[in-house]
Amino acid sequence: MESLGLLGHSLASAKEFNAPKRSDLTMANKNGKKIIILGAGIAGMAAAYELGKAGYNCKILEARDRTGGRNWTVRQGTTETEINGVKQTSKFDKGQYMNAGPARIPQHHVTLDYCRELGVELEVFANSNEFSYYYQENAGPLSNQKIRKGTVKSDTRGYVSELLAKVADKTSLDSPLTKDDIEKLTAYLKREGDLSTDYTYKGSSRRGYKELPGGGHQPGTIDQPYSFSELLQSGMMNNISGDYSFQQQPMMFQPVGGMDQIPKALEKQLPGIITFGAEVQEIRQTANGVRIVYKTKADGKTKEITGDYCICTIPLPVLKNISADFTEPMKNAIRSINYAKTGKIGFQFKNRFWEQDDRILGGITTTNMDISQIWYPSYGYLSQKGVLIGYYNFGQNAVDYGDLSLSQRQARALNQGAKIHPQYSKEFENSFSVAWHKIKYNEGGWAEYSASDLKSYYPILNEPQGRVHLAGEHLSYLTGWMAGAFESARIVVSRIHEDVLKEGKVPSKVG
Amino acid sequence: MESLGLLGHSLASAKEFNAPKRSDLTMANKNGKKIIILGAGIAGMAAAYELGKAGYNCKILEARDRTGGRNWTVRQGTTETEINGVKQTSKFDKGQYMNAGPARIPQHHVTLDYCRELGVELEVFANSNEFSYYYQENAGPLSNQKIRKGTVKSDTRGYVSELLAKVADKTSLDSPLTKDDIEKLTAYLKREGDLSTDYTYKGSSRRGYKELPGGGHQPGTIDQPYSFSELLQSGMMNNISGDYSFQQQPMMFQPVGGMDQIPKALEKQLPGIITFGAEVQEIRQTANGVRIVYKTKADGKTKEITGDYCICTIPLPVLKNISADFTEPMKNAIRSINYAKTGKIGFQFKNRFWEQDDRILGGITTTNMDISQIWYPSYGYLSQKGVLIGYYNFGQNAVDYGDLSLSQRQARALNQGAKIHPQYSKEFENSFSVAWHKIKYNEGGWAEYSASDLKSYYPILNEPQGRVHLAGEHLSYLTGWMAGAFESARIVVSRIHEDVLKEGKVPSKVG
Repeated sequence: MESLGLLGHSLASAKEFNAPKRSDLTMANKNGKKIIILGAGIAGMAAAYELGKAGYNCKILEARDRTGGRNWTVRQGTTETEINGVKQTSKFDKGQYMNAGPARIPQHHVTLDYCRELGVELEVFANSNEFSYYYQENAGPLSNQKIRKGTVKSDTRGYVSELLAKVADKTSLDSPLTKDDIEKLTAYLKREGDLSTDYTYKGSSRRGYKELPGGGHQPGTIDQPYSFSELLQSGMMNNISGDYSFQQQPMMFQPVGGMDQIPKALEKQLPGIITFGAEVQEIRQTANGVRIVYKTKADGKTKEITGDYCICTIPLPVLKNISADFTEPMKNAIRSINYAKTGKIGFQFKNRFWEQDDRILGGITTTNMDISQIWYPSYGYLSQKGVLIGYYNFGQNAVDYGDLSLSQRQARALNQGAKIHPQYSKEFENSFSVAWHKIKYNEGGWAEYSASDLKSYYPILNEPQGRVHLAGEHLSYLTGWMAGAFESARIVVSRIHEDVLKEGKVPSKVG
Repeated sequence: MESLGLLGHSLASAKEFNAPKRSDLTMANKNGKKIIILGAGIAGMAAAYELGKAGYNCKILEARDRTGGRNWTVRQGTTETEINGVKQTSKFDKGQYMNAGPARIPQHHVTLDYCRELGVELEVFANSNEFSYYYQENAGPLSNQKIRKGTVKSDTRGYVSELLAKVADKTSLDSPLTKDDIEKLTAYLKREGDLSTDYTYKGSSRRGYKELPGGGHQPGTIDQPYSFSELLQSGMMNNISGDYSFQQQPMMFQPVGGMDQIPKALEKQLPGIITFGAEVQEIRQTANGVRIVYKTKADGKTKEITGDYCICTIPLPVLKNISADFTEPMKNAIRSINYAKTGKIGFQFKNRFWEQDDRILGGITTTNMDISQIWYPSYGYLSQKGVLIGYYNFGQNAVDYGDLSLSQRQARALNQGAKIHPQYSKEFENSFSVAWHKIKYNEGGWAEYSASDLKSYYPILNEPQGRVHLAGEHLSYLTGWMAGAFESARIVVSRIHEDVLKEGKVPSKVG
């Protein structure tokens, strides 16, 4: 893949991963070693899957009665009890679902490679849809109007291109461009902004039509553009670059039938390896291995299991309350990392009014109201009912929906959404809301490292504690993405396998 | 939908269409009238479908043994003989296909409404994919390099934003913007271009990474941006606005299983109405009706059928050679309209190297070579084999692939494509190429009206000749789109229905 560097970026997996092979293992360790893995989320199962290929004996302890962790698809009958005791059960119709955790996969993520290897069928996740809306409050003359993203982009490109085209030849630019470059730039700006021959922006069919072109004598009529000043005051254009992030550029993908098709496919590869309902109580180092104490939810009994190594994928907010033989710096690092307060609400509606009335099939509406976003479903297009995401809330500088009661979350999001889609009230059926920082065994959306955290704590968290290795999205530069969990698992698998191949080079007990 | 005008554009069907209702018809014409429709493409079947709802007695004459016309999905065993006698049979594997004609549906087209009404399942057509490439020849330092569209866009936005940000506050702009507006503009440009604090563009993770971020100690490394001058000379940026057209803005859609699911769904609504293998020979006006003479391919016999009205959807290059009772101005108009020389080639490959090696799932690569574009399939992601479109050729200012032999088309497109995807030679299996101007009963891609054609000929073509009405994409401002055929059919249906409801107001015989 080296050569692909030329293409603007390499698309090799971040680090070449040499998957352990059965042939690697000598007679001395022909059954590999026994690896105790804590957590049957993406990282834990990916580690067991890769180690298993080489003949390692893996055991996974999972506190829940399901795999996937934050990769969680809410369907009819899904129940959840938040740590404060608030309980809800999904009333979605059969076939309707929401991906409460990860919901989109970029093309360059290793996640795609696992989907291919495990036979997980993909479809497009419509992340960027020019037909979805911007809606701003307290933002000048365009306040409280829903405006198509494509319309805002066309007008913005038009005015920006006009401004630059008019001065492009002026020395005031003091740019290194040659006269020929500047001619090419001006020609480009004319196309980019759809400018008239005098390089002014007078509107464009790109922004949409007042009356659409059609058959017979209907050429279509174009609306006047918004004024540049109106647009600038609206702030809508500041949301455009949200789609430019390398993690969010089109196309993006989702598994057909729900994101949990990925953990389900991994689980299928791990028969008899996962113990469900096993709450980890202690993580101990022994002379030449590890000892894990856990409580079984079924009978409340305390049990223990020993192994040669431990891979701990437990999220840090949960891990910090588990007694473990970790060094003080490690314990301090685990305590110190902040996790995202984030959540979503799924609204089931009787009819897909966003498709029928607004002609929006998939995509995301963006607003400065605290619901932040409305996600239209990327599956079941043109069918009758649908589940959309009524808010995707990050907590920072916004109301923490997790602090509200279930009915308050629903009422607040319905009220705000109805300003964009008045059909809300008539079409609403039921909702299911998830606040990750209120969910047992997670207590947060994803690790949020500050620059100083990355300097002081992140290196410590990445160092094994004797034979215990931490893995998960929080041990990656792709926090909040499944790819972070996969990449982290692959690194820990490589490290342990290297240790095993270096006889007697296992680090001694710590803490 | 009026109010939607506020949204930047209305999304009502171009013209409100009042579908004929059974209750409209009085005793006098309780069986409606007999309508002879020429052509079982989108326009012809849509007209029969809408008239049939009201109880009209429709008969469709179709020269081919299939419906759909230019809406044509090529699959295993599909055969075609071009007008010069060149014959080919598709060797695509089962499940592989190419949409030889229309291949994408925008959200605002009436086509979507028919898909909903007829139960045609949709999936996303990946029209805009930032991971697909630009590839230019003879275009300066970046010639003969495939560069991700997202990379070109990021660098272009960076430099353009930098240029404008540096002069935004200068009076030289002489723009109507206030000081506050200009501050907002500068803040926007900083986001739009991902500029550094001194408002210069130094590259951005948006363009992609040299080494991707991953697990553990892999923050990822970013490549240097291309120089602005290199980019301008490459001309790649001039292709960016191709995605801005209102007809091509994301999201776009395609029927699951091939575009011909639309004609198949219409056909299902028209049992016993379509006569296949019927080549129209004459279109005659009678005292109070129409008489159509046709030859049946089965036995070569000449037959005729009479009716009250005729809807003729035959493409103009074919219609001009059919003897018809048309006025001279009409005959002249029919003769005078140019049709697009356009075609596609489908390449079946053993492996989806574009997905596995290039991480491109769907989308279009754009080049200044005469293949113009490479379309990656928007279905069957992550599966093994795939059919991509090796060229999409419009004829103008380019080699007309239709003038080449089948083997020349294949060789030329393989050779050019291999410059972007060297895997072509190793992975190629077979091809099927379509040149619409060489295909009997079409003889062109779509009507191409010049501004003067629209003034002088288009109005004549839209006027009924006695009881004969023309319909099809060529009678719309959406030429080349299925929506043009649907909208035109709806207008002609409305016109005929109005005539029928106005007893005795039927125009007299012409020609």
